[in-house]
Amino acid sequence: MTTDAPSAEYSRALAENARYAAQFDRSTLSPARRLAILACMDGRLTIEDIFGLRTGDAHIIRNAGGLATDDALRSLVISQRLLDTRELLVVAHTGCGMLTFRDDELRAQLAADTGVALDLAFHAFSDLEASLRAQVERIRAHPWLRDMAVHGVVYEVETGRVREIA
Amino acid sequence: MTTDAPSAEYSRALAENARYAAQFDRSTLSPARRLAILACMDGRLTIEDIFGLRTGDAHIIRNAGGLATDDALRSLVISQRLLDTRELLVVAHTGCGMLTFRDDELRAQLAADTGVALDLAFHAFSDLEASLRAQVERIRAHPWLRDMAVHGVVYEVETGRVREIA
Repeated sequence: MTTDAPSAEYSRALAENARYAAQFDRSTLSPARRLAILACMDGRLTIEDIFGLRTGDAHIIRNAGGLATDDALRSLVISQRLLDTRELLVVAHTGCGMLTFRDDELRAQLAADTGVALDLAFHAFSDLEASLRAQVERIRAHPWLRDMAVHGVVYEVETGRVREIA
Repeated sequence: MTTDAPSAEYSRALAENARYAAQFDRSTLSPARRLAILACMDGRLTIEDIFGLRTGDAHIIRNAGGLATDDALRSLVISQRLLDTRELLVVAHTGCGMLTFRDDELRAQLAADTGVALDLAFHAFSDLEASLRAQVERIRAHPWLRDMAVHGVVYEVETGRVREIA
């Protein structure tokens, strides 16, 4: 599949990169504002714009749902303990795709579509704010993240505003 | 720790959000350009600028190293199978923090610093291009991601340019 796929999007991305490189401004390994963000992968969350961040300001960790998975915790420990961030925003959002399906149903559908059954946990959820509070609590409870201030906000895709939740 | 932490950065982020919300432009759940990006969390990677993306164009998944971890694969399956992306850029970068330490040494240091020993795999690596190729291969081999075109690039923090690797 890979070699036959149309590459218009890839070509465009490379051309845009050439333009970006022409006005490039470098910065340093540790984030300048000592900030980390954990957010959903959703394309409507332009994190730097939402929070007024520039290149080099913050670590940005993203996955489906903005969840404090084991992998997000791995990244956060590296961010805080090795690269010196002090504060974290956890960003959930209205209209999240994770609210639109159930794990067991998606697994069954993919097994039927592909002929391969896998035991993959998607971590879909039905209550946005409850999920966000649970992510914040999981991070606060981590023994290697004790010095990090953690805030939980819901970003509203309808308005561009965030609401403070935890 | 959380309640005592200085909140200047948090206040600034909220103020910037008020400014952002005033000129907000919404878009839809499925990425407009059918594109997903998997990249490192490093603050120097302003993904939208690097590839000329706007709000709503692409899913963006990020973790320490830009690795195809189980959690990144979870997000990619949701991105491709549920939300209809067709193409993926995997973005590693020069000067990555993951090149600067060894898992066992960091674990030992954190156990000493905190008094809590944990069996956390950080997935540090020593060869950037070899790691990138391995991530791309892992994604291409996933039975639920067979219809996704996958490209691997190294972003140079020194120049702003990407080099095509896989």
